[in-house]
Amino acid sequence: MKTGTRQLRDLARHIGGELRGQADYLITGVAPLESARSGDITFYLSGTALSTLQSSQAGAVILSPQAADDFGGNCIVVNNPYAAFAKILQYLFPVPRHEPGLHHSVQLDRDVQVHPDARLDAFVRVESGAKIAAGVWLEAGVFIGANVEIGAGTHIYPGVKIYRDCRIGERCIIHAGAIIGADGFGFAEENQKYIKIPQVGGVLVGNDVEIGANACIDCGVMTDTVLGDGVKIDNLVQVGHNVHIGAHTVIAGQTGVAGSARIGRHCRIGGQVGIAGHIDIADGCVIAGQSAITHSLRIPGVYSGVVPAHEITRWRRIVARFDSLDTLFRRVKFLEKKSARPASSDGEPLHGE
Amino acid sequence: MKTGTRQLRDLARHIGGELRGQADYLITGVAPLESARSGDITFYLSGTALSTLQSSQAGAVILSPQAADDFGGNCIVVNNPYAAFAKILQYLFPVPRHEPGLHHSVQLDRDVQVHPDARLDAFVRVESGAKIAAGVWLEAGVFIGANVEIGAGTHIYPGVKIYRDCRIGERCIIHAGAIIGADGFGFAEENQKYIKIPQVGGVLVGNDVEIGANACIDCGVMTDTVLGDGVKIDNLVQVGHNVHIGAHTVIAGQTGVAGSARIGRHCRIGGQVGIAGHIDIADGCVIAGQSAITHSLRIPGVYSGVVPAHEITRWRRIVARFDSLDTLFRRVKFLEKKSARPASSDGEPLHGE
Amino acid sequence: MKTGTRQLRDLARHIGGELRGQADYLITGVAPLESARSGDITFYLSGTALSTLQSSQAGAVILSPQAADDFGGNCIVVNNPYAAFAKILQYLFPVPRHEPGLHHSVQLDRDVQVHPDARLDAFVRVESGAKIAAGVWLEAGVFIGANVEIGAGTHIYPGVKIYRDCRIGERCIIHAGAIIGADGFGFAEENQKYIKIPQVGGVLVGNDVEIGANACIDCGVMTDTVLGDGVKIDNLVQVGHNVHIGAHTVIAGQTGVAGSARIGRHCRIGGQVGIAGHIDIADGCVIAGQSAITHSLRIPGVYSGVVPAHEITRWRRIVARFDSLDTLFRRVKFLEKKSARPASSDGEPLHGE
Repeated sequence: MKTGTRQLRDLARHIGGELRGQADYLITGVAPLESARSGDITFYLSGTALSTLQSSQAGAVILSPQAADDFGGNCIVVNNPYAAFAKILQYLFPVPRHEPGLHHSVQLDRDVQVHPDARLDAFVRVESGAKIAAGVWLEAGVFIGANVEIGAGTHIYPGVKIYRDCRIGERCIIHAGAIIGADGFGFAEENQKYIKIPQVGGVLVGNDVEIGANACIDCGVMTDTVLGDGVKIDNLVQVGHNVHIGAHTVIAGQTGVAGSARIGRHCRIGGQVGIAGHIDIADGCVIAGQSAITHSLRIPGVYSGVVPAHEITRWRRIVARFDSLDTLFRRVKFLEKKSARPASSDGEPLHGE
Repeated sequence: MKTGTRQLRDLARHIGGELRGQADYLITGVAPLESARSGDITFYLSGTALSTLQSSQAGAVILSPQAADDFGGNCIVVNNPYAAFAKILQYLFPVPRHEPGLHHSVQLDRDVQVHPDARLDAFVRVESGAKIAAGVWLEAGVFIGANVEIGAGTHIYPGVKIYRDCRIGERCIIHAGAIIGADGFGFAEENQKYIKIPQVGGVLVGNDVEIGANACIDCGVMTDTVLGDGVKIDNLVQVGHNVHIGAHTVIAGQTGVAGSARIGRHCRIGGQVGIAGHIDIADGCVIAGQSAITHSLRIPGVYSGVVPAHEITRWRRIVARFDSLDTLFRRVKFLEKKSARPASSDGEPLHGE
Repeated sequence: MKTGTRQLRDLARHIGGELRGQADYLITGVAPLESARSGDITFYLSGTALSTLQSSQAGAVILSPQAADDFGGNCIVVNNPYAAFAKILQYLFPVPRHEPGLHHSVQLDRDVQVHPDARLDAFVRVESGAKIAAGVWLEAGVFIGANVEIGAGTHIYPGVKIYRDCRIGERCIIHAGAIIGADGFGFAEENQKYIKIPQVGGVLVGNDVEIGANACIDCGVMTDTVLGDGVKIDNLVQVGHNVHIGAHTVIAGQTGVAGSARIGRHCRIGGQVGIAGHIDIADGCVIAGQSAITHSLRIPGVYSGVVPAHEITRWRRIVARFDSLDTLFRRVKFLEKKSARPASSDGEPLHGE
């Protein structure tokens, strides 16, 4: 990806790293290590094969002190190369400065408060009592319900819908198609029909939260659903009513969190995970993708329930064995009993329990 | 959550319950049992610890006759406290009365029929031949395709898109971002390419159906996909072409139902379940979250295939054992044979089958 | 489903099949084999019970030469009846011809290029530098970001959002609510917080691609996410940043593909599959629904990891056995050792390893 031209020394200074090599080397692009060419800056993470670094055609590499000792090219030495590269990308690809103002097609209710420094694009609709802070960018087709508050600097991509009474923090990013504050899934059964339980709580989203495309964060029943500061939610994630997600927890795509679950701070949760309702997950838990969390996790740790796929004939044999597993345990128990007895005392294996 | 002020006797009368305690007690809010305070009304379900009820600070509690005997505070006694509380919430938080009428930005084709009592908000688009009944509320940015019919009293949240020829019943609720009637996933292979099979059926949605945010209900190939009366579909659920879902069946978030599956009435299906195509599920089946339903379920019952997560090291040992399960069965069979023989006749265990 | 009236000979000619029976028979509708009636045309696939064919009330059937020998009614004989029927449906239900032109509510930036033969419906927004080719149809509420290119004949359903710099090929179909080019999920940890890694790549979509409703295709970090020609993606699928999907690969609903995975050509992937990041899947792989692909699949074949649901009491016994599986293996090993020794030398089973 091409960038404007910068001297390597500018970039080193920006991330506070030690420059080795040609300080006036001109950086004109960014690329992954494998495909980087002359003029490109890239990064190297420990754990990747050193040969990939040494054979790279990159113009300059951001790397750790240890890796730097094995590298002869232009580089910037830092303790956390991945974070440093993130900062370089932010520096080279700033979020485009948008002019504040309201597109002529925007539809605001009369008592809406929009900061003059906010930008509202075409076909945005904002309902009664909503407050839009400074630097907010609502892209085309965004819907903001009654009494919603959007904190300063928050960027909401096209087509996001935010139901009434939700509050979104500062510097959040909400991607296209995300739905914040739809009704939780709550019904009471009576006479074999379901009565809707009105969902009258809101959603409270902290600062620096990112929410992925087409993700859904339901409102609470009577109190709020809560996403702490710095929470990152990937695409197509479902967060049920009255869920609490602690600060700086990260949840990958298509994961579902059922109602009233409480997830701690600094957790990392993979994609397609299912988290049952009304359970607690301790701070710092790491959960592998596709796992089912059916009970509270009270101890920080790494958890998994993922069943890796096999060639299908082999897998079918395994699954067929699952069905006989109970019997197998009883057969082994019988053999154990028998082997503890004199060799002559035989019996019926399957009735041996 | 604050409400308008009501006397407890009004609420008891509304749900037809027996009031015990102070009839003129003023209710000013609703809250869960644990966090309810003076002035709040809440509910207690049998099965919850009785101490939670007895230590509650709630102003009044809706509960069953049995629980009422162990409670000294203000209460309303009913046989189904959860349903009664749902009705109290509906009473205290009525869906806001919206003024009928068309926002000036609405775009209707000429032959669209809109009942004068319907409300169409900003940026709504309705195509040729569609019929919008009395009391319908189409929120901002809703798209209604050609010849679609929306039944009386149905509420469609912002950004819902309904393709041509779909029919939605009365008093339905469709949440933001849901897509009704997109093409089913149908292709015929020819010369290593895929030919699209036109999906020309519609979607037929009964009365009192609720469909969650960003859920997708595909149209049928040649006939309709059908959702019976009272069906409740949660967020991000996928319903394939020509699926039939029986009345009063409930499906939780992120579940997927493949094409032509037939789900009975009064089923309860958890989140992230996968239901294979062309299978039948009997009335009254209950399916645990994350289960895979690969064959028809002909007998009503509770079904599960969920594999609960473990600490990862322990889980990896289990998964590694899956791979050797087939061998283990053979090893046990060999031991059984051997133990049935005189002790001297040994052999090679793994070739023993 | 009713159609215009056609003679059977016209349909046979259209698909190049051999007509048997009444050439001037009038076809007035299409239906599945089981429900087809007089006047309907349908198809029969080998593998379905022959009795279904022979008892069908259909006016005419498209079938293979083998099946035709067992059928006495009107029919069209072809080698690939399913593909032939797809062509019949395309013939009888052509995509409605839409008039080109821009709805008056469309909002275009000044330097957008829109071919005069394209059609842009109500509330469409197209940003700076975008190019819309001939025959493109952007339905209501579509958002096209800066510098996006949409190839000739592509049909984009209501509410689709395409971020900046994405390129969509010719004759593609993108269903309502799909989000193309949202940021991939990339963060670098520093001081227990997450720094956003700007996602500055695009999405490159080939020709004849179909993308389902509410699906999400993320943009790449520094280079493009790529969908090859003829790829078919179902509803609610998640495709992470820098994923490559080979030509003519088909992915069913709710599947997730994590970042930088490379999927080959002509793969068929079921619904709710999870594919880990940074792995390779060979050309021609078939993956059963709900499988977890945690490692590269280097050999073409059929793979599965699906665990079919059981009656819950039985399933709980099986799952409980998983937890003791490791112990069971050790118990069997002990029995084997013991049975290899003289019958008198007993020991402690669980310490036997």
